[in-house]
Amino acid sequence: MAWDMKNDAALRSRAARVIPNGMYGHQSVRRFPATYPQFFDRAKGCRLCDVDGHEYIDYLCGYGPILLGYHHPRVDAAAARQKRKGDTMTGPSSVMVDLAEKLVGMVSHADWAVFCKNGTDATSTALLVAREYRSRRKILVAKGSYHGSAAWCTPLPGGVLKEDRAHFLYFEYNNLESLERAAEEAGDDLAGIIVTPLKHDVRVDQELVAPTFAARCRSICDDKDALLILDDVRAGFRMERDSSWARLGVKPDLSAWGKAIGNGYPISALLGNERTHATMPKIYATGSYWFSAVAMAAAIATLDEIENSDYLEHTIRVGEMLRAGLDKQAAAHGVPIRQTGPVQMPQVLFDDDPDYRNSFTWGECCIQNGVYFHPWHNMFLSAAHTEADIAQTLEVTDRAFGALAATRLVGTSAIA
Amino acid sequence: MAWDMKNDAALRSRAARVIPNGMYGHQSVRRFPATYPQFFDRAKGCRLCDVDGHEYIDYLCGYGPILLGYHHPRVDAAAARQKRKGDTMTGPSSVMVDLAEKLVGMVSHADWAVFCKNGTDATSTALLVAREYRSRRKILVAKGSYHGSAAWCTPLPGGVLKEDRAHFLYFEYNNLESLERAAEEAGDDLAGIIVTPLKHDVRVDQELVAPTFAARCRSICDDKDALLILDDVRAGFRMERDSSWARLGVKPDLSAWGKAIGNGYPISALLGNERTHATMPKIYATGSYWFSAVAMAAAIATLDEIENSDYLEHTIRVGEMLRAGLDKQAAAHGVPIRQTGPVQMPQVLFDDDPDYRNSFTWGECCIQNGVYFHPWHNMFLSAAHTEADIAQTLEVTDRAFGALAATRLVGTSAIA
Repeated sequence: MAWDMKNDAALRSRAARVIPNGMYGHQSVRRFPATYPQFFDRAKGCRLCDVDGHEYIDYLCGYGPILLGYHHPRVDAAAARQKRKGDTMTGPSSVMVDLAEKLVGMVSHADWAVFCKNGTDATSTALLVAREYRSRRKILVAKGSYHGSAAWCTPLPGGVLKEDRAHFLYFEYNNLESLERAAEEAGDDLAGIIVTPLKHDVRVDQELVAPTFAARCRSICDDKDALLILDDVRAGFRMERDSSWARLGVKPDLSAWGKAIGNGYPISALLGNERTHATMPKIYATGSYWFSAVAMAAAIATLDEIENSDYLEHTIRVGEMLRAGLDKQAAAHGVPIRQTGPVQMPQVLFDDDPDYRNSFTWGECCIQNGVYFHPWHNMFLSAAHTEADIAQTLEVTDRAFGALAATRLVGTSAIA
Repeated sequence: MAWDMKNDAALRSRAARVIPNGMYGHQSVRRFPATYPQFFDRAKGCRLCDVDGHEYIDYLCGYGPILLGYHHPRVDAAAARQKRKGDTMTGPSSVMVDLAEKLVGMVSHADWAVFCKNGTDATSTALLVAREYRSRRKILVAKGSYHGSAAWCTPLPGGVLKEDRAHFLYFEYNNLESLERAAEEAGDDLAGIIVTPLKHDVRVDQELVAPTFAARCRSICDDKDALLILDDVRAGFRMERDSSWARLGVKPDLSAWGKAIGNGYPISALLGNERTHATMPKIYATGSYWFSAVAMAAAIATLDEIENSDYLEHTIRVGEMLRAGLDKQAAAHGVPIRQTGPVQMPQVLFDDDPDYRNSFTWGECCIQNGVYFHPWHNMFLSAAHTEADIAQTLEVTDRAFGALAATRLVGTSAIA
């Protein structure tokens, strides 16, 4: 059966003329196998449909925002109700206060909230707060960690000046010694540490944080009167119904949120503790749509589900089912893979696969059989992924492992 | 009649506990007279209703985004249609290509488009492009101009390091000599000039650009192979159906857009010419919701109205009616005011009013009679403001001028 991508190809060709590279940013599939679609037509639950009519079980969930499934009825209803009243107005609606109260009630370190649009808005504002707090400059950040697309943190160097990163010191995630060395280097100019709750860098295995490492981040900040910033944009509410280090007993001073908090409606947030409450008003942070009410109403409904449903236990349960199934299949087909990180944020990498040849072969087979996996980015499960979806996925992946194993045999005999 | 703000007061008191300062950013009314509401319940056309049931003719239009009126039926219908299909998905929808084509077709200098959320995203990305273009660092920017809330441009210094602004050189808007001096200082390290299409700084009179000044911005960039960035976030499509210097024959290399392009749906854009097409792909720029389809569908519908309706001529006509009426009333009451900038972006300032005493007295009277004016920010008319709305407004303002004139008499005799 030919894989028809006529509409996608036509759109890509039109896009190439009016959008640099035809697409930009984290959702570009330019480096993916050609069978991955770039453009999508619609989505519902955990299902995504591309512009050529192919349906996929989606393991990206919009790269994180979709926590409860696309078009969650209660979230959409809350958004639609608010939309009938007003969205972007000349001031906020009462839902802004409701949402701030709700987040402050749910996130144990939080004493206040401000809302913004991008995850980058939240992390960048957090830096300003940390630097203003005791008038210091140095920020510690893990090498290779993604904290957004501003000049201080973007993973590509284009247009970035050395001054944009003049006062960052880099450590290795989970490496106590390198963290302490960086803190020492910062001396009495340490403003803060920004860190993700787990290592979820692209193209490498995910790593859960070592409890001693998290605790040391906290104690360094305590010792030096600096601020600990937890970048929970990607993992927030996917590991805890609180900030992601709550289980470890480590409370940040500031936490950056986005993605899951609005189930796809555009909103991000910076939360802070009491210690930082007087500093935040000294920071100028705003945006044309930061006070828009629809995304806030959607976030309140999303948080209601987070509080009152078993979404977390459910995503862990189906995540375990997927992980165990993939492990078993990979072993059966003799294809070594690595699955890392929390099961509800799957990362699947193939051993000895520097050019993603194995990952691409496997992924293409999945794509053409209705399962959308990412070759090097951590993925996300939603509350809408059922056990039946996982079972259907595993039927597809079994075939994909088989196809890959066959290719590898051919590759070994014919090419090597 | 007592001015009942019970609900607003209750919300402010709750907000004070969970939001620093109770509110932040450009929509905070903390420095306004106490009768200005902070929270709004709903909006429709040019009417805004606060949480205590007071209705206003709104001259802020959400601080710019509302170009066609709140809840424009065709824009809302287009957004709702797209919403039923999908919004934030694992990739963009075809509407992204439609929107890029449409903008490139409408904006004469534009060869490509990228979409983002905040105006700041567009201006900040523009700087990266300018710096990457010829690997240079210096950016010229007008003193006091607002280009967003990132560290390089925020109007408050909180948390900002001197390195964040290391390579900016400042000129006076419309001052050729100071522009040329800054360009000379940049020498062969000039990356670009970022400039608003008119001077629309807060708290001062607006100033239309001098054609010679706009032309000199262009010729400096041509002479030095640097990029001219027009920050059209606030004025875009409010002066022209093209970028705002089109009438002057001055085409920027890059233009930043936001506000009006989505009629309140969250979207901004960076447009570039052919010269910059190969540079943009070297810049990493992305955000969780930058590819969300609903705001793009809304933007397409908004641009359709911009192309096919008389919104521009209409806002100029009602703007002229408002300006002439206010001028006449101010003169009749002996209260000197200054109205500056394009009539469709009104700015009303009172002479000899350093502490806004006159502005506040007048504005409070307007507020309590159903007209929402801003004391020091430029305002916006929309296609939904009718001649009847202006007439109703002028009845209110006449009373407000009368009240102010009376206060000033009392003030002169009793206080001075």
